[in-house]
Amino acid sequence: MSIPSASESPFATGLKPPYWAVIFTNQREGRDAGYAATADRMTELARQQPGFLGMESTRNAEGFGITVSYWRSPEDIAQWRLHAEHSDARRQGREQWYAQFELRVAKVERAYAFERNAG
Amino acid sequence: MSIPSASESPFATGLKPPYWAVIFTNQREGRDAGYAATADRMTELARQQPGFLGMESTRNAEGFGITVSYWRSPEDIAQWRLHAEHSDARRQGREQWYAQFELRVAKVERAYAFERNAG
Repeated sequence: MSIPSASESPFATGLKPPYWAVIFTNQREGRDAGYAATADRMTELARQQPGFLGMESTRNAEGFGITVSYWRSPEDIAQWRLHAEHSDARRQGREQWYAQFELRVAKVERAYAFERNAG
Repeated sequence: MSIPSASESPFATGLKPPYWAVIFTNQREGRDAGYAATADRMTELARQQPGFLGMESTRNAEGFGITVSYWRSPEDIAQWRLHAEHSDARRQGREQWYAQFELRVAKVERAYAFERNAG
């Protein structure tokens, strides 16, 4: 188990509540079928959207993943949802990539951070 | 990549907003040092707390994990935070198990579910 360097940190840090979170928990199916390339593209696109604040994502060996993206407002989330490439990716997700998912939109009210060697 | 059977589903399903989420994103350190046993115990204890609704959790090969627990109210979250065993586990987490974490408390306003062969 190696700890990523700061330059490739998987954390979204320094965000000040209130802001919004999209919690996407999902079970991948076995075939890649373009998934990895599209996932990378969606991350790249999301970062370009107004109101995008950050993203945290992980997946275990059984293909169960959780991705949380953070946004300034529910309107920003709604706009990203309407993006044509994102809509097409979501359709492919339902057709090919995911056996099951839950998607939740939540308002972050409080947050705490810890870093062992910080400060 | 195998898909878990329903009896061991990693999803928290059927929850009706509004409810609350505790989003815990964390980077484990290398040594176990009692981590696995305590994590199991905390899951068992959390399930017994008033207002506990469900939990979803995953971790990748680099030790980056996301656990989201779901609760009826912020008061239920606060009560769980005060539980003596949980407080002790959090202290051990800061001292031994986690290099870094972010903990966010959020109110889930909307939710969508998808299951390929449902219905």
